[in-house]
Amino acid sequence: MPHDPVKALVAPRPIGWICSMSAAGEVNLAPYSFFNLVSDNPHLVMFSSAGRKDSLAFVEETGEFTCSIVSWEQRDAMNRTSAPLPRGESEFVHAGLEPAASVLVRPPHVRGAPAALECRLVRTLELDGLDGVRATYVMAIGQVVWVHIDDAVMMGGLVDSALMKIVSRAGYHDYFVADHKISLVRPGAV
Amino acid sequence: MPHDPVKALVAPRPIGWICSMSAAGEVNLAPYSFFNLVSDNPHLVMFSSAGRKDSLAFVEETGEFTCSIVSWEQRDAMNRTSAPLPRGESEFVHAGLEPAASVLVRPPHVRGAPAALECRLVRTLELDGLDGVRATYVMAIGQVVWVHIDDAVMMGGLVDSALMKIVSRAGYHDYFVADHKISLVRPGAV
Repeated sequence: MPHDPVKALVAPRPIGWICSMSAAGEVNLAPYSFFNLVSDNPHLVMFSSAGRKDSLAFVEETGEFTCSIVSWEQRDAMNRTSAPLPRGESEFVHAGLEPAASVLVRPPHVRGAPAALECRLVRTLELDGLDGVRATYVMAIGQVVWVHIDDAVMMGGLVDSALMKIVSRAGYHDYFVADHKISLVRPGAV
Repeated sequence: MPHDPVKALVAPRPIGWICSMSAAGEVNLAPYSFFNLVSDNPHLVMFSSAGRKDSLAFVEETGEFTCSIVSWEQRDAMNRTSAPLPRGESEFVHAGLEPAASVLVRPPHVRGAPAALECRLVRTLELDGLDGVRATYVMAIGQVVWVHIDDAVMMGGLVDSALMKIVSRAGYHDYFVADHKISLVRPGAV
């Protein structure tokens, strides 16, 4: 739905730049904005895929994936990895990107990304709508088992999210750059 | 985890300002950033709650909720609704907000919000981590059955997301204001 207004409202959506590997060793890399944290204890992330595309198929084959964070500098490369390529053809090569080896999982992450999460699949879930109508989407939920953070985005021991200039998704062809940070202290917080 | 770096990386997260109503008619309003679209056919949204707080308990009781979008103007009111109040005490009153009647569901949405989604619960899901470790989070998945959009954020028949000045969540006390929009045309799109 190219003119879907709902995707312009539930925004800005963080982008999980998901890298996965088939049992045969083929590598897939694609951006997903139906993506988010769903638990911080333990850390769980979900991404939802329109059917069993390569990312989801590979994740189901091997049970592992990585989520790289998309910075302003890599926005065009991220966009190029959304092109449908034949299975087995590398989005890294197509987009002029280099893979960086992961620590605990086989799929690499994106070299130059300000941060990346290594995840193990916990479960997939075929999504239904009301009245049992089958949605075309399948959700994958994974647990974060390792975290990479570029030292350049650390400030006083904390991550300065604004330094990553994260690119997030809205509707149509729209994206936002997260460079306008504010602080709100939760009532009762110390 | 007040210094959790992962929440600073999976960012900016859209905020679902979730309004729900108990079977007895008590109203709850609270912001959730473990929130996103997970399908656009049909439109499904999820939010994930740390245990069965009022929002989730009410949604399970009556099967309905609304998600209002948080604008720059309502950021402080949104923050006030994150305070833990005794069950049955109205976050609308506490935050100086007015409820707007919904069309197809009983829970109201936030008057003055640039947009709101009316949803019916499809299912809840208790989240597990690896090795069957129970997470403390429960996910609710709902189908969008009605959409409200303020005419002031429409431009040429499309939603101009930047006009909403949406406030989204990062880590620690950090939020982002979505006012720096860019356009990237997906390869192969027309």
